[in-house]
Amino acid sequence: MQSTTKFCKVIGYNFNDITFLELALTHRSAATENNERLEFLGDSVLGLVISNQLYSQLANSDEGILSRLRASLVKGETLSELAKDIGLGDYIQLGSGELKSGGFRRASILADAFEAVIGAIYLDGGIEAATSFILSQFDTRLANIDPNEVNKDPKTRLQEYLQARNQPLPIYTVVLIEGKSHDQTFTVNGEVEVIKQVIQGKGKSRRFAEQQVAQKILDILKK
Amino acid sequence: MQSTTKFCKVIGYNFNDITFLELALTHRSAATENNERLEFLGDSVLGLVISNQLYSQLANSDEGILSRLRASLVKGETLSELAKDIGLGDYIQLGSGELKSGGFRRASILADAFEAVIGAIYLDGGIEAATSFILSQFDTRLANIDPNEVNKDPKTRLQEYLQARNQPLPIYTVVLIEGKSHDQTFTVNGEVEVIKQVIQGKGKSRRFAEQQVAQKILDILKK
Repeated sequence: MQSTTKFCKVIGYNFNDITFLELALTHRSAATENNERLEFLGDSVLGLVISNQLYSQLANSDEGILSRLRASLVKGETLSELAKDIGLGDYIQLGSGELKSGGFRRASILADAFEAVIGAIYLDGGIEAATSFILSQFDTRLANIDPNEVNKDPKTRLQEYLQARNQPLPIYTVVLIEGKSHDQTFTVNGEVEVIKQVIQGKGKSRRFAEQQVAQKILDILKK
Repeated sequence: MQSTTKFCKVIGYNFNDITFLELALTHRSAATENNERLEFLGDSVLGLVISNQLYSQLANSDEGILSRLRASLVKGETLSELAKDIGLGDYIQLGSGELKSGGFRRASILADAFEAVIGAIYLDGGIEAATSFILSQFDTRLANIDPNEVNKDPKTRLQEYLQARNQPLPIYTVVLIEGKSHDQTFTVNGEVEVIKQVIQGKGKSRRFAEQQVAQKILDILKK
């Protein structure tokens, strides 16, 4: 456990009442008084701040696009990445079991604590403070939003991405088909020249597995 | 279409910029510029205001109970009821097709417009104005919240409700079983002395159908 003072510096917000932050950093494995209620609250604060931002940033996008963008910004995967960026795992108080099993690295624990921190800032400093924090954490992701990309599937987006950079197209190969004929699982490998490793995806159809591979490659390329 | 001035009186909020309200009352069947984006925003505003209220009102309830209560308060059914209470259907601008088919009475159109009105108040008057509106609309529902009831199923709650009032217990009767043995649908009638009508429920099991009947009876009794 590092000091909460240091954490406040990292996130750029000083608490009037530090007990809010302490509670936000307490996982349920550590105490009965834990961050679950703050997580409930923070989830809604995050939803509103992101909705508001998308609403004004994308004045010409319809509600379907806004909803899909919001879903991708507030999903657990995104939140655990943001939590990792600020080293949140180092500050979370865990019970001894979770500590031994490396709970501070678990994505769901990180994502939940990230929402709890938002809830804590909201209770301590109001909606303005919470908005500042959220917008600063999401700045790159919000700046990179392209509403035209939302409706395209990952394979199409990857193809367009590579073509725009005069790169050769990806090669997808089915490497394994498991299960009985009515319930098969396809494993597909994908390769693109710019990434050194082979990327694997699985799915109930070849197409679905390929889309998964393409999405994974896009995630790597856009990092 | 009645005047928006009258509607402002009904909801107890005067818009600085009435075009927000006009947009909120325009269904997509009536115009390309419609209330769908405002609905997207209003949904998040509603989520935060209800979360915040539940968080402070139920200081001892855990996150699971708060989540279930929030879900039941913000679901479409609740919102369309609230919309009916303020006569929202009379003010919604619909295309001619929806108008003929009675769209102003459709629950989903009412619920969506209710969220859009919240979004409009939020943009016009900020989070404080939206909070006042929401809390005044939900006042009875928030006052009647009982966190101890959340985890009980409808049959148990109905039984307790009647016992507390020295009323005879409900009688459930299976009146129809349809479909093949692996895919049956049960129709159950329920009767309680205090309600003159027979209440019917359907479900894939007898138990499920009975729970549905009990929930319907509870809804009637609590009105």
